[in-house]
Amino acid sequence: MSTPTTTPADEPGARPAGPGAPRSVAGHQEAVLDLLAAGFRERPPGQEDTDLISARGRILAADVAAPGNLPPFANSQMDGYAVSSADLAGPGKRVELAVAAAIPAGSEPAALAPGTAAPIMTGAMLPSGADAVVPIEQAVPDSFPPAASSPAVETTAGAAARPTVALPAGVPAGQYVRGAGSDIRAGAEALPAGTVLGPGQLGLLAALGLARVAVRTRPRILLLTTGDEVVEPGRPLQPGQIHDANTTLLRALLEEAGTTVLLTRVLADSPEEFRTRLQEDLTSLQPDLVITSGGISKGAYEVVKQGLADQDVRFLSVAMQPGGPQGIGRVAGIPFLAFPGNPVSCVVSFEMFLRPALGSVTGLPRPRPELPALLTGDVHSPAGKHQVRRGRYLPPAEPGGTGQVELLGGASSHLVHALASSNALVHLPAGRDSFPAGTEVTVWLLDR
Amino acid sequence: MSTPTTTPADEPGARPAGPGAPRSVAGHQEAVLDLLAAGFRERPPGQEDTDLISARGRILAADVAAPGNLPPFANSQMDGYAVSSADLAGPGKRVELAVAAAIPAGSEPAALAPGTAAPIMTGAMLPSGADAVVPIEQAVPDSFPPAASSPAVETTAGAAARPTVALPAGVPAGQYVRGAGSDIRAGAEALPAGTVLGPGQLGLLAALGLARVAVRTRPRILLLTTGDEVVEPGRPLQPGQIHDANTTLLRALLEEAGTTVLLTRVLADSPEEFRTRLQEDLTSLQPDLVITSGGISKGAYEVVKQGLADQDVRFLSVAMQPGGPQGIGRVAGIPFLAFPGNPVSCVVSFEMFLRPALGSVTGLPRPRPELPALLTGDVHSPAGKHQVRRGRYLPPAEPGGTGQVELLGGASSHLVHALASSNALVHLPAGRDSFPAGTEVTVWLLDR
Repeated sequence: MSTPTTTPADEPGARPAGPGAPRSVAGHQEAVLDLLAAGFRERPPGQEDTDLISARGRILAADVAAPGNLPPFANSQMDGYAVSSADLAGPGKRVELAVAAAIPAGSEPAALAPGTAAPIMTGAMLPSGADAVVPIEQAVPDSFPPAASSPAVETTAGAAARPTVALPAGVPAGQYVRGAGSDIRAGAEALPAGTVLGPGQLGLLAALGLARVAVRTRPRILLLTTGDEVVEPGRPLQPGQIHDANTTLLRALLEEAGTTVLLTRVLADSPEEFRTRLQEDLTSLQPDLVITSGGISKGAYEVVKQGLADQDVRFLSVAMQPGGPQGIGRVAGIPFLAFPGNPVSCVVSFEMFLRPALGSVTGLPRPRPELPALLTGDVHSPAGKHQVRRGRYLPPAEPGGTGQVELLGGASSHLVHALASSNALVHLPAGRDSFPAGTEVTVWLLDR
Repeated sequence: MSTPTTTPADEPGARPAGPGAPRSVAGHQEAVLDLLAAGFRERPPGQEDTDLISARGRILAADVAAPGNLPPFANSQMDGYAVSSADLAGPGKRVELAVAAAIPAGSEPAALAPGTAAPIMTGAMLPSGADAVVPIEQAVPDSFPPAASSPAVETTAGAAARPTVALPAGVPAGQYVRGAGSDIRAGAEALPAGTVLGPGQLGLLAALGLARVAVRTRPRILLLTTGDEVVEPGRPLQPGQIHDANTTLLRALLEEAGTTVLLTRVLADSPEEFRTRLQEDLTSLQPDLVITSGGISKGAYEVVKQGLADQDVRFLSVAMQPGGPQGIGRVAGIPFLAFPGNPVSCVVSFEMFLRPALGSVTGLPRPRPELPALLTGDVHSPAGKHQVRRGRYLPPAEPGGTGQVELLGGASSHLVHALASSNALVHLPAGRDSFPAGTEVTVWLLDR
């Protein structure tokens, strides 16, 4: 990143950075969305089979229909007595029934004989001949006879030893019965393709007996950082060198957003080497998207701009601060985005352009939560640009109130420490240069 | 789960489920928090070293101080000319200076001779003798001389061939210079222990040159599901059997919340076998927490209750629907929570009790986003209980408005399909039984 920026973030004034007026933020958002949509239309995601736990956070590849009824059989919603509602017609307030063999969950019960009531546990299969359940609390006595604790043993048929139970008359058919298929019927759509699989959706697949699921492959990204001065973390610096934050920042953001980063490289400021390595990587990896940082500004050495001079890539200025310089196009037919080289500019470029487009095209990631917030201090912003600041959002003291946001670290795009202390991006829209304390602005929460 | 519930969720009326009045939701939340806090105090998390990308979403184990200044050296904030402000004192509007050798990023520049201006790229080291930068756009001419593109070659010293540049007079010292340590000074605290490491925090560690980081070990969980009727997904069902959703649901929720599930087991309804396996697992795994589902209600076969009759575990009823039956205590000194057996009851138990306690004690997970929402239909709720329904939250049409929430799937705790279609838990607090359409209630968003 020999000239990681002349990003607007570093320029206090608002002036067009190249020939022609800068593109609006919305205009570039649309261009990035169009590029990604076309790329994924031409090369749609594949699918892969995985166990349920590994599928957490992935996207369902195809509609899933229920392979059977859920629940698979009519069962009791309560601990109580399985009865035939006809046996409890009345006319008195209570009816005395003989106690049949108890029915634990997990067993296949014998048919219920007329005039009997079978102790039944929650979730246990309703016996044929029964159509309702009376909760144990409504029975007299209101606890199960000892025989119910020995489910394998039939209650004795001898009239004297045989326990009875008094149950309320007038029980409607279906009372406290969960019908077969009452949760979902066999053949019905359980989950549509495109569903993001969280715990609840995975739980449903498990309940349906499915141990594996087909999910969409993740978008595959090639991530390149440029600059003679950039050194990997963990290695010593020579004078004039800095450690590379962009690879870590962008890789973490991309993985959090549901993509796979196939390869990262830090490349020197040689346009020839940049072009050669890029062509090799494109051929061997066939990524869905290439992202670069650095080398697209107005300095004397702009490796990405110079290396791709003959490619279908446009380098332009967006009316945004930071992150004004942007590159967009295709290299060897593969969608290509170039971000400026300063770390904060990279993050803002990702959040404003790539993240929303990925979400729209693939279903992941979900949009950042967007909230109103009141500025805690006066802020200046160049009127011609959409300024994106970093800050700490404080939720409202009372529900229904409006939170506050304190800006951190100034407008400059090299301030990584302030970025790391922030939990929100703060939008100061174009068309206005003064935002006094108390102004309501829009923030995007970063840590959800 | 021979009696996975007589959960209140399955009971239309509000009546105490055991001896004594049910415990309040807040009371049980406090009890779970106390249990976890004591457990983690007695056995605090360890720490492990990891590369930055693997540390995403983990918790920083110890304070990190900046090992050096960031940026490590004074550098240019712009593409432009490095100058001595003394050379541009005036008195005219512009001062003509000789153009010195260009300074690309990543190099160690020679000292700036008095009366000269060196082309300098963004991020490049400021030469000694220079104290300010003039942006290229303010220079005449406003583009770099060709020699600036060959940084290794000194400009010729011959007066006739030597290019000059006219720069504005009156440039203040420090203009467009990023001072050494202006982002963070060597030795200052970069990140405090306990920080959740997202992309921004990892980017800061990378910028500081750190390739590895010490994170806290995750809480280690033993997860047991009980019930004779429960069969693992992927295996065929016999009559009366159902597939196990709870293991998948709870494991996915626990992993999403930042814990490690050491082992899952499905255990039959034998108190002896339950006790034996639990003791073996506690000895061999030494988990931080045991969670069971099922076997804690009022049926004839309650495997968890019966298996732990002689342990320091209390089985009680909480005034909540679903998820009323709860167990809490210690087994062999290890914190132990028992949830009821119906899938929705498990989820509600996790969300209401365990998830907030984990967040408070360990720093992860973050609380669910809590929002007001207007009910789309009339709802009944037992007045004595805090009812937790599932629903689909629809954001407000306009910023600043209140969203709506449509309840899905009724109160019954076996409805996994409705759970899988929901994105919110809906709180219907105790003390009120009727919630007409349009009532404002509180929702917790599940999919963030």
